[in-house]
Amino acid sequence: MIKIVGIGPRREDMTIMASQTLKEAEVVIGYGGYIKQIKDLLEGKNVISLGMGQEVNRAELAIDYDKKGYKVVLVSSGDPGVYGMANVLHQVMGKYSGLEIEVIPGVSAVTYSAALLGAPLHDFAVISLSDILTPIVEIKRKIRAAAEADFILAFYNPRSKRRTQPFKEALKILFEVRSPETLVGIVKTRDDSSSVRIVSLSSIEENDVDMNTTIIVGNKFTYLDDGKMITPRGYVLPHSTHPLASEFYESYMAGEGVEGSNTACEYYPCHNHPQNCTFCFCPFYPCGDSSTGGRWIKEKQVWSCEGCTWIHQDDTVECIQAKLPQLLKKVADLQDNKKELLKLRRECVFLTK
Amino acid sequence: MIKIVGIGPRREDMTIMASQTLKEAEVVIGYGGYIKQIKDLLEGKNVISLGMGQEVNRAELAIDYDKKGYKVVLVSSGDPGVYGMANVLHQVMGKYSGLEIEVIPGVSAVTYSAALLGAPLHDFAVISLSDILTPIVEIKRKIRAAAEADFILAFYNPRSKRRTQPFKEALKILFEVRSPETLVGIVKTRDDSSSVRIVSLSSIEENDVDMNTTIIVGNKFTYLDDGKMITPRGYVLPHSTHPLASEFYESYMAGEGVEGSNTACEYYPCHNHPQNCTFCFCPFYPCGDSSTGGRWIKEKQVWSCEGCTWIHQDDTVECIQAKLPQLLKKVADLQDNKKELLKLRRECVFLTK
Repeated sequence: MIKIVGIGPRREDMTIMASQTLKEAEVVIGYGGYIKQIKDLLEGKNVISLGMGQEVNRAELAIDYDKKGYKVVLVSSGDPGVYGMANVLHQVMGKYSGLEIEVIPGVSAVTYSAALLGAPLHDFAVISLSDILTPIVEIKRKIRAAAEADFILAFYNPRSKRRTQPFKEALKILFEVRSPETLVGIVKTRDDSSSVRIVSLSSIEENDVDMNTTIIVGNKFTYLDDGKMITPRGYVLPHSTHPLASEFYESYMAGEGVEGSNTACEYYPCHNHPQNCTFCFCPFYPCGDSSTGGRWIKEKQVWSCEGCTWIHQDDTVECIQAKLPQLLKKVADLQDNKKELLKLRRECVFLTK
Repeated sequence: MIKIVGIGPRREDMTIMASQTLKEAEVVIGYGGYIKQIKDLLEGKNVISLGMGQEVNRAELAIDYDKKGYKVVLVSSGDPGVYGMANVLHQVMGKYSGLEIEVIPGVSAVTYSAALLGAPLHDFAVISLSDILTPIVEIKRKIRAAAEADFILAFYNPRSKRRTQPFKEALKILFEVRSPETLVGIVKTRDDSSSVRIVSLSSIEENDVDMNTTIIVGNKFTYLDDGKMITPRGYVLPHSTHPLASEFYESYMAGEGVEGSNTACEYYPCHNHPQNCTFCFCPFYPCGDSSTGGRWIKEKQVWSCEGCTWIHQDDTVECIQAKLPQLLKKVADLQDNKKELLKLRRECVFLTK
């Protein structure tokens, strides 16, 4: 049996099973850099380092030692199934009969980087920007599809000294499809330590990105708070409906609301002219999601919509009005139907932001 | 400091750091099922189980204990940043000042399931099919985009007793976009053990899928070998060019090849009539990729193209001919330029298969 072990991004992220499997190994085969990372675990073992580009040779060598009866471990950084040795070994395995392979999973760069950035993931697409084995048209197609559908994107192998074109192409597509304010997390890991930066798409510097970097691109809901990159999932936060909001929605549901700019209002424009006042009180309050500009007043734990102008855009109002009557039939629905209301908010943010 | 710990899918997949962090915790908060999984690690600690749907309460409780000075750990299964507690806690954190949060990553269901299936991953998209917080239109949009771009798809939370519609919708989209032969891996995990099945898209039974299941949908290159689901990455396998192939490509490059069906050939049809014989010898030999029908003759370690009719399709030939002249200028390029040739193969498989 050949075991392929994912050693994770750093030593402390290695799993119990990975550590155990390495202990029991007689022959350990891997890329030199990864072997170095675990060398204290390899005393007394036959350790074989083979360089980048020698992946097929590593697989053949592992099979060779396995046939001779040794307990062989192939080492991959991160998880062996994410651009690691699992695919190569399984492909080469086809040449032989009677091989048994076990993959020991590990923490991959996407979740490791996400953990350092805060909580940036929701539905996400992992794409390797290496065009050594993959045509650039395929890489571009995948980036465009994922960016347009508003996935979180995670780029592996984004850029090396000689391979700079795919990252340029990736940025070009992102600039076309996504807003320049889109948040991008840049995590560089080397020798068991990482540096973390969170920037806007428009301020990425290509030279900041190298082959030890993982890039995580946020979606339309990703925001920055206290240095963390956060993509909210849309949980309902506990709240009570303010009496003025109840009053407002009584009128709204009776068809007595004001549509468009309410220039007669003494507070107009409470945000900026021209603003659509149809939802003077927000049906999603408190969304607790800073991606549209709101924020917590921390001293009071009160959600402030002062910075949110999204609810006052004409296209936002139109999007909400198309479905609100189905969800809001009485004032109590502001609370009782909050999950569905927040889902309507998600739909409209995607369409209008 | 509040720590959010990913305990992985099974006990042995927990990381060293997760285990260490739990040991040092004073208060441990989590969903009952996850707490049960690690209860031997929790002796003497204040352990608080809260049910499904209580995510915001768990986060508030963690903050509460943290403010009181306790070492608090929030527990998530798999990785806390993949539909886990990291996003909730970071969102709720916004209400308060001076909180510190650390996320301890774990092995997530996608890489765990991939390891059990073999090596199915390449570029992949992770999508939760739960429509509790996400509009079904958003879920459908993402599935369609990822399926059309030929990502590997991983579905989390695919189906529960009451929530059956999103999985139906997912299958409907996959049937529209992907071939019925597309391989699908179904991994069910419960109480630290997993069952694994690999089926074709057309033979999925909805009732086989529940909330403890992770689904991995292959791409156009994913094939089955010896019970394993394998997506090759396109490595060049060692080979020498057969003298007959050299002879063939000398003629081909001199413009003396036969285009279309070579009915005059004594072996015609070596596959099936009508077949396009333009590439009587395959320029990608040996691709080592069973997704187009080839396979290893294991006794001899020889790659057999007997089962591959893809190279003899008219659209395949057209796709290859559009770019082959740039890549193949002399017979030696069959070897020297093999990486680029295999990338051309990838492009054409995507367009024609």
